[in-house]
Amino acid sequence: MKAYKDMSKEELLALKRSLEEEFKTEEAKGLSLNMARGKPGASQLTLSMPMLDVINSSSDMKTLLGNDTRNYGDWDGIGECRRLMADMMEVKKDNVIVCGNSSLNIMYDIISYSMLMGVNGSTPWCKLDKVKFLCPVPGYDRHFKITELFGIEMINIPLKEDGPDMDMVEKYVNNDDAVKGIWCVPKYSNPTGISYSDEVVKRFANLKPAAADFRIFWDNAYGIHHLYENKQDEILNILEECEKTGNPDMVYIFSSTSKISFPGSGVSAVATSFKNIEDIKKRMTTQIIGHDKINQLRHVRFFKDLDGVKAHMKKHGDILRPKFEAVIDILDAELTGLEIGNWNKPNGGYFISFDSMPGCAKSIVAKCKELGVVLTDAGATFPYGKDPEDSNIRIAPTFPTQEEMAEATKIFALCVKLASVEKLLAY
Amino acid sequence: MKAYKDMSKEELLALKRSLEEEFKTEEAKGLSLNMARGKPGASQLTLSMPMLDVINSSSDMKTLLGNDTRNYGDWDGIGECRRLMADMMEVKKDNVIVCGNSSLNIMYDIISYSMLMGVNGSTPWCKLDKVKFLCPVPGYDRHFKITELFGIEMINIPLKEDGPDMDMVEKYVNNDDAVKGIWCVPKYSNPTGISYSDEVVKRFANLKPAAADFRIFWDNAYGIHHLYENKQDEILNILEECEKTGNPDMVYIFSSTSKISFPGSGVSAVATSFKNIEDIKKRMTTQIIGHDKINQLRHVRFFKDLDGVKAHMKKHGDILRPKFEAVIDILDAELTGLEIGNWNKPNGGYFISFDSMPGCAKSIVAKCKELGVVLTDAGATFPYGKDPEDSNIRIAPTFPTQEEMAEATKIFALCVKLASVEKLLAY
Repeated sequence: MKAYKDMSKEELLALKRSLEEEFKTEEAKGLSLNMARGKPGASQLTLSMPMLDVINSSSDMKTLLGNDTRNYGDWDGIGECRRLMADMMEVKKDNVIVCGNSSLNIMYDIISYSMLMGVNGSTPWCKLDKVKFLCPVPGYDRHFKITELFGIEMINIPLKEDGPDMDMVEKYVNNDDAVKGIWCVPKYSNPTGISYSDEVVKRFANLKPAAADFRIFWDNAYGIHHLYENKQDEILNILEECEKTGNPDMVYIFSSTSKISFPGSGVSAVATSFKNIEDIKKRMTTQIIGHDKINQLRHVRFFKDLDGVKAHMKKHGDILRPKFEAVIDILDAELTGLEIGNWNKPNGGYFISFDSMPGCAKSIVAKCKELGVVLTDAGATFPYGKDPEDSNIRIAPTFPTQEEMAEATKIFALCVKLASVEKLLAY
Repeated sequence: MKAYKDMSKEELLALKRSLEEEFKTEEAKGLSLNMARGKPGASQLTLSMPMLDVINSSSDMKTLLGNDTRNYGDWDGIGECRRLMADMMEVKKDNVIVCGNSSLNIMYDIISYSMLMGVNGSTPWCKLDKVKFLCPVPGYDRHFKITELFGIEMINIPLKEDGPDMDMVEKYVNNDDAVKGIWCVPKYSNPTGISYSDEVVKRFANLKPAAADFRIFWDNAYGIHHLYENKQDEILNILEECEKTGNPDMVYIFSSTSKISFPGSGVSAVATSFKNIEDIKKRMTTQIIGHDKINQLRHVRFFKDLDGVKAHMKKHGDILRPKFEAVIDILDAELTGLEIGNWNKPNGGYFISFDSMPGCAKSIVAKCKELGVVLTDAGATFPYGKDPEDSNIRIAPTFPTQEEMAEATKIFALCVKLASVEKLLAY
């Protein structure tokens, strides 16, 4: 394969004509495919259907401690569900609050309350001239939307193969007391699929924040979402590391079963230091009487323990692996050697991240749309929806079937080629 | 019966000695009874157990519109559940957002967001020197806790037989632009059990608030929680009345099935104007991807429609009525004519409200505790937990059995008598 950048203008023009022919052929097919949404596919959801049988009208509805899950009580979750989530999050049960169906909502609530009331008695962030969050990029659009909603200034931090650029993180966190937080997806990162190295986690734990109310928002959304049995990323336990460095209050860890049981009908949890739990308790016991404990019981009775969750996640991996590989195989076959893009081959998570030549992402997404293939908006993986390089595209292979993914990826590769040729000709 | 106030000192002293004997006898029994919590009893929860069968592993999980309830989507609730909640709330479906398991959480979220970001573009309340809420008293402690948490100044408004003192409400709302809200439980009010008259509702709708971002927080928690088939309070539809007066944005209506299906595992909803829904949408779609739609489906498939809910609530009423009557019968028998207290005889809701002689409530609650009967803290029904008259006590007859309630009420009556005698002797 000849790299596009090494082609003459004539070669590029000829290539462009040929790609445009292909484009017209595809356009005529009137496809409708969606690679935008990080949603489980129907076959994954089917895996959890037996969960809907474990609680029925003849079930014992009591917790191990004898509390009635059908009534008010246990604001921080029933004990056995706190145990399960703690095991999943690799923390102690006493560090865990089990909440409702959405870990995003826990993050929103913590930031909203910090804005209004501060953190553990600190000055409310809304009273400060400036509040900043560090945003490893590309990252998760819904994280960025929360900080954007509250007018928090977001600072891009390059996400490398082993985690965020820690030199930059240290520089900002240790020197600027307006920096109050950082968004992290430490394992199978959304969207690049990388996991933080031990060194990166240790550097996080060793931060010496200028602001006492600086917090790491450690969204371990894909903690056990492996694609392979023999290639599984592992990360160090950030809460433990922060305890070792005497900084236990510096981190909130988030998790949920949204992509384990049912999106929207799972359980979520936050794990943090005892001091932070007291701070959250003060707010949460005013906000709500308690979360859905019957659903917590349903989860515990179905999964039983962490081994049960892991066995379940292996089935998810078996369904997702061929979809991911379909995308990667086609990208490999179609684009290798052309030097018009890079893509990752993650060991887990929900996304494949594609970096086009600078200035091509929007054009690729627009062209795909013309051919009936919907991608996440270009730029969505950056704060304010602005990718300074106009390069990153998030591919979500989970929802369509394997065949649809293959078809959509062919379209995608075609659009990458055409957009790249156009870009090169425009220089 | 001779009124205590008409007794001579000698009579009171003799009575005191006799009551103290009774007190010692009861003390020796070592009872443990709880009249504090507005929780359904076990037999009520049993009524909803069949709901846990209607969704199982062989269920069709699609909504009427064909959306998969197991996956992300329908941020404002599945259509059929919005319809059901709209019918319950007597509003149009398009005015309803179905949320998670807690209407209290919806209220908290709206106030928290108004503090930070204002209402429909108004100045954020946290930027103002002073924000005030009107609090009809006695009222619901958890309402007051929310406004207290955010430092909102709470102003007591006497709750009369037909609703809040509307002269005072009008004076404050129409003249003071720091007044941003009022807490209302318009039907079977917590704790006095009264319902707002048509005139009161109309006066609410005709408010001309000095603050454009003034809102009525209309917590219709007991909208269909009747005790009697032939004595059912009805209230005017506040949203409709506000539409008539050209003030549709002035009200949020809240409801939930917490005391219909399961506390903690029900569904909640807010109904309001289209403009307010847009304001909520902006926040909510950042806060959460969506609520628990499987549980929404479970509720709709079980209740089917409003008639189904009403039939279910009749069964609740049949369970609760004897408990309420047990309390009232004993209060009538023990205290009538003594002029040491007043109590209501509600047609629905969850509470009986007792007003002792001024300055006796704390003493009564403390004495009951000594005898093993737990009551809601005296003062809890007032902002900041401070009842200026030290007179109101909330009795929750729902959780204990009828026999336990009778026993507890006898203890209560004894403590009322003793505390009153002590008070009269202290003058």
